[in-house]
Amino acid sequence: MPLEIERKFLIKPNLLDLPKEGQKLIQGYIWSDPDKSLRIRIAGDQSFLTIKTGNNPLNRSEFEYQIPMKDAQDLLVLCDSKIEKTRFVIPQNNLFWEIDVFEGDNKGLIVAEIELSSENENFELPQWIDREVTNESKFLNVELIKHPFSKW
Amino acid sequence: MPLEIERKFLIKPNLLDLPKEGQKLIQGYIWSDPDKSLRIRIAGDQSFLTIKTGNNPLNRSEFEYQIPMKDAQDLLVLCDSKIEKTRFVIPQNNLFWEIDVFEGDNKGLIVAEIELSSENENFELPQWIDREVTNESKFLNVELIKHPFSKW
Repeated sequence: MPLEIERKFLIKPNLLDLPKEGQKLIQGYIWSDPDKSLRIRIAGDQSFLTIKTGNNPLNRSEFEYQIPMKDAQDLLVLCDSKIEKTRFVIPQNNLFWEIDVFEGDNKGLIVAEIELSSENENFELPQWIDREVTNESKFLNVELIKHPFSKW
Repeated sequence: MPLEIERKFLIKPNLLDLPKEGQKLIQGYIWSDPDKSLRIRIAGDQSFLTIKTGNNPLNRSEFEYQIPMKDAQDLLVLCDSKIEKTRFVIPQNNLFWEIDVFEGDNKGLIVAEIELSSENENFELPQWIDREVTNESKFLNVELIKHPFSKW
């Protein structure tokens, strides 16, 4: 089963220079149960359907398929609300930090994620990293749709 | 939006000679809400993920994607229960009758479906057709999983 092992952190914005180029992401959830979700995401000119399962945010199963843009647009209409954010990627040794700068109802929120190959993999914490929020469910995108950052 | 326009009938088994070759289908639902469902189906050596939306059984939107067999097997594990049936196809002019012979908890149930290009399309009813059940939700596969034919 394809696993997604991710750790998530807040950042210190004044210490981080974002790359010039980011990718705009628009995504919604057709289902968003505590233990499984179906996400529709438009990333630039590509679009994806993703099933995520499991309760542990550090370690979830992920099934992702590219789908036609027209389908993604039709399926996004079925989603109650959407998340819009711009993703910036910062390489670090063999890993990649993904910095998500949220817009809309979540404007003001910036999180950094790193994808690992095992839960115990070591990696360096850049100086612009603030505290870890991997296990705080309110930072999950499925939760940010229901309880956006602007309402916290 | 890709539409699926189908009409569903019971059959008179003593009047129908099934084709020799049928295709075994195993399917489950990760979500099965009244207005939308996500189905995982294994059909022979191929497997599919299908989102169906809409309340009108005669006319639903359908988004179907082929997925790797390994993913389908992993995703079927997430489904509470499964439907097993063998599908036989009978051509009729430019249309196709699909005859589903159910097994397991739905053994004894046989339904015939015909896919149309519009709700008003005319077609001939073979002599082996019994009454129409298009609008009887208990014959939906999502319902047959929860309330199988053997318990009616």
